[in-house]
Amino acid sequence: MRDLIINLIREKKFTLVRDEIVKMKSVDIAELLSEIDDSDSLIVFRLLPKDLAVEVFSYLHNEKQKAIINLITDKEIQHIMDELYFDDMIDFLEEMPASIVKKILKNAKEDERALINQFLNYPENSAGSLMTIEYLSLKKEMTLKQALEHIKRTGFDKETIYTCYVIDANRKLQGTISLRKLVTGEEDKTIEEVMNTDIIYVTTHDDQEKVAHLFKKYDLIAIPVVDKEHRLIGIITIDDIMDVIDKENTEDFQKMAAMEPSEEAYLETNTFTLAKHRTTWLLVLMISATFTGRIIRSFEDVLESVVVLAAFIPMLMDTAGNAGSQSSTLIIRGLALEQIKIKDFTKVIWKELKIGSLVGIALSVVNLVRIYYFEKMDMKIGIVVASTLYFTVVLAKLLGGLLPIAARKLKLDPALMAGPLITTIVDALALIVYFSMARLLLGI
Amino acid sequence: MRDLIINLIREKKFTLVRDEIVKMKSVDIAELLSEIDDSDSLIVFRLLPKDLAVEVFSYLHNEKQKAIINLITDKEIQHIMDELYFDDMIDFLEEMPASIVKKILKNAKEDERALINQFLNYPENSAGSLMTIEYLSLKKEMTLKQALEHIKRTGFDKETIYTCYVIDANRKLQGTISLRKLVTGEEDKTIEEVMNTDIIYVTTHDDQEKVAHLFKKYDLIAIPVVDKEHRLIGIITIDDIMDVIDKENTEDFQKMAAMEPSEEAYLETNTFTLAKHRTTWLLVLMISATFTGRIIRSFEDVLESVVVLAAFIPMLMDTAGNAGSQSSTLIIRGLALEQIKIKDFTKVIWKELKIGSLVGIALSVVNLVRIYYFEKMDMKIGIVVASTLYFTVVLAKLLGGLLPIAARKLKLDPALMAGPLITTIVDALALIVYFSMARLLLGI
Repeated sequence: MRDLIINLIREKKFTLVRDEIVKMKSVDIAELLSEIDDSDSLIVFRLLPKDLAVEVFSYLHNEKQKAIINLITDKEIQHIMDELYFDDMIDFLEEMPASIVKKILKNAKEDERALINQFLNYPENSAGSLMTIEYLSLKKEMTLKQALEHIKRTGFDKETIYTCYVIDANRKLQGTISLRKLVTGEEDKTIEEVMNTDIIYVTTHDDQEKVAHLFKKYDLIAIPVVDKEHRLIGIITIDDIMDVIDKENTEDFQKMAAMEPSEEAYLETNTFTLAKHRTTWLLVLMISATFTGRIIRSFEDVLESVVVLAAFIPMLMDTAGNAGSQSSTLIIRGLALEQIKIKDFTKVIWKELKIGSLVGIALSVVNLVRIYYFEKMDMKIGIVVASTLYFTVVLAKLLGGLLPIAARKLKLDPALMAGPLITTIVDALALIVYFSMARLLLGI
Repeated sequence: MRDLIINLIREKKFTLVRDEIVKMKSVDIAELLSEIDDSDSLIVFRLLPKDLAVEVFSYLHNEKQKAIINLITDKEIQHIMDELYFDDMIDFLEEMPASIVKKILKNAKEDERALINQFLNYPENSAGSLMTIEYLSLKKEMTLKQALEHIKRTGFDKETIYTCYVIDANRKLQGTISLRKLVTGEEDKTIEEVMNTDIIYVTTHDDQEKVAHLFKKYDLIAIPVVDKEHRLIGIITIDDIMDVIDKENTEDFQKMAAMEPSEEAYLETNTFTLAKHRTTWLLVLMISATFTGRIIRSFEDVLESVVVLAAFIPMLMDTAGNAGSQSSTLIIRGLALEQIKIKDFTKVIWKELKIGSLVGIALSVVNLVRIYYFEKMDMKIGIVVASTLYFTVVLAKLLGGLLPIAARKLKLDPALMAGPLITTIVDALALIVYFSMARLLLGI
C-alpha cells in the first residue's frame, strides 16, 4: 500500500491517490502517513475530505502532527481545531511547542480559550487530563420521549451518548441514564423516575490508575468527572482508558527492568533520551554491586585455598537473582491489579516460604547429584553449593515477596522492587551464605 | 463491612444483613463473599434477591462458584444457569469439574445443550471462547423506526445493544448499525441505507490477542464473531477484552521473569502449582549458568595469579544482565503493542548499538575513576574492568535488541527472550571478555 501510494504521488496521479485512500479506515491512513515522509504526508493529508482529515489527524503521532501543523495554513489549522474532539485537541496541544499553542489560542474564541487553559492545567496522568467535554446532559424533569428528541437534535457531535448525565441548574451531577434505558423504557416516564442515582464518578485530580481500575471493576464504558463542588466537568471514555492501561503496563515493564519510563514509543524516542533513561539505574545498581565485590574480597582467603569455589559463583548468583525476580514480579503484578493488598502480607510471606523450600530442595538435589556424580568433585563441595542454593532460594523468595509490599506500604512504587534491585541484594546475601558455608564445612 | 456482616450472621440478624447487602454493587458483594467462609457466603448468597444473586455469581472466583454450586439445590442452580449471560455461563462451565457440567447439561433444553457443547469446544484463548450470544440482530429491510420498536420489544436481555448486527436469512453478516445512528437518524430510512458495511469482525478461531488488538486500534466496544461461512455466531464485548488485556500482560510479566504462566490470581493458586511453574525455568537457567562456571574454571590460572579479579565478577555480571534486560524488555513490549515490527530489525540494532556505546562509556568512566582514585588499585586493572564493561554493555544491548525480534521471526514468543535468559547468555560473554582482557593487558 505504502509503495503504491508513493508511486502514485511521484507520478502526480493525485485523484488515484485520493480514490485509494478514502477506501481506508482513518486509523490505517494515519499509520500509512507515519510511514511516508512529511512532504508526501502533506500531499495525502490535503487530498482527504475535510472531516476525514480531522479524524486522521487525531490518530497521528505527535511528531507527524507537529510536521503537518508547521506546513499547513492558519485557516487549515483553525478547521482542524474546530472539529477535533476536545480531549484529542488537549492531547495534541499538550505535546506542541509553546509557539504553536500560542498561535492556536490566539485564534480561539474567548470562552474556548479559557476552557483550553483550564484543561491544559490539569496535572499529567490525572482524570482531568483525560476527559472530554463532549457528553450529553439531560434534566431530570424531561420524559424519556423528550430526552430522546433532545438527543436526536443535539446528539450528533457527542463522543459518547450511550450514557447520558442528569444535572441540575448548577451543573451538579444528579444521576446517569443509559441510552439503552431511554430507548427501551416507557416513554412517558420522567428521567427522575428511571435514572440511576448510585453513580460511580471521579474527580478531576484523581489519578488515571484509579480511573482505569474503576472501569475494569464495574465494566464501564464512560465515567463522569466532577469538581470539588460535585459539578459535572467532563467524561472519560473507555478508548482513552485502554490507552492508559497500555501506558501504565509499559511503565511497569520499564521500571521493573530498571529504566526510567519513556512516554513515547521506542522507535519514536531518540537515542540520547533512551541512553539517559537507562544509565541512572545501571549506575546505581553497578555501585551497589561493588559491595558484593567487597564481600568476595573479604573472603579472599577462602577463595585462595579452594579456587574451584569461584566456578560456582555465576550459577549461584544467577539462580538467586532469578528466584527473587520470579516472586517479586508476581507480587508487583498482583498489587497493580489489586489482587494482592497490604493486609495479605503474612499470607504472601508464608506462601513464599513454602514455595521457596520446595523450589530450593529441587534445585539443591539436582546440583548435588551433578557435582558429585557428573563433575566427580568432593562431596563436601557439593554440600556447600547445594545448601547455599537452598538457603539463597528461600531468602530470595522471601525478599521478593516482602519488598514490593513494603514499598506499597511506604507509598513507594512496588515496581521499583523488581528483578534488578532484588538481584543485587540477594547476590550479596548468596555470597555471604556461600563463603560462610565453605568456611564451616570445608574447615578453612 | 466484612466484620459487620459476619457479626450480623453470628447474631442471626438476617434481615439486617440483607438490608446492608442490597445497598452494595454486585461486584462489591462478590468481593465480600470471597473474604468470608463458604457457609457464611451461602447464607448471604441466599439472602440476595434472585436477579442480584445471578449477577453476583457471575463476578465470583471459580473456587467460590464451585463451593456455592455444591451447596445449593438443583432448582437454584437451574435458575442461575437460565439467567446468566451466555458467555459468563460458558466461562463458569469451563472451570467446573466434569460432574457438575454433566449435571447442568442434563437439566438444559435440547437446543441449549447443543449450543453449550459447541461453545465449550472452542479452543482456549480463541475468539469463540470469549463470545456471547446475547446480541441484537436486525434485517436490512426494516426502517429505523421499526428497528427501534423491535429493540424496545426484545432488547432488554441483550448484553450490548449499542451496536446492532444486520443479517440475512442465512444469518450471514451484512452490516452493523450503532444505536446512536438508529436514534439520531431519520426514522423513515431503511437500515440498508444507513448501515455500515465495512465491518471489522473476527472468526471463531482467531486468537484473543488479535481480537484485543482490533479493539484498541479501532476503538471498538463490541466486535462480531463469524464462522467460516461468514455467518454471525456471537459478539465479544469490551469488558471481556479488558480482562484479556490484563491476562495477556500478566502472562508476559510471568514469562519475562522465567515462569510458566498461571491462569489464576496469585493468592488463589496453590503453593505446589506455583512452585512447579517456577522450577522448570530455574533448572534450565541453572544448568546453563554452569557453563559460565566452566568458563571461570578454564581461566583458573588467571584468577589464581590475580585473585582480586574475582571481586569484580558480581558487578560485571549484574551490570551485563541489567543492560541486556533493559533492551529486551523495551523490544518485547514494543513487539507486543505492535509498535515494533520484524521489518524494523536493522533500525533497532543500529539504535541499540548507539545506546550501548553511550551507556557503556558512561559506566566505564565511572568505574575507572572509582578503581584508580578511590580503591587505589593498579591502573591496569581499572582498564581491564572498564573496557570489559564497555564491550559487555554493547554486546548485552545488541543481544537484547536482537533476540526478541529473532524469536518473533521464528514464531516463538518474544517474551521468552527476556532478562533471565539474556542474563545467562551475557554473563558468559562478560566473563570471556573479562579474562581475555586480563590475559592481554596484565600479561598473564
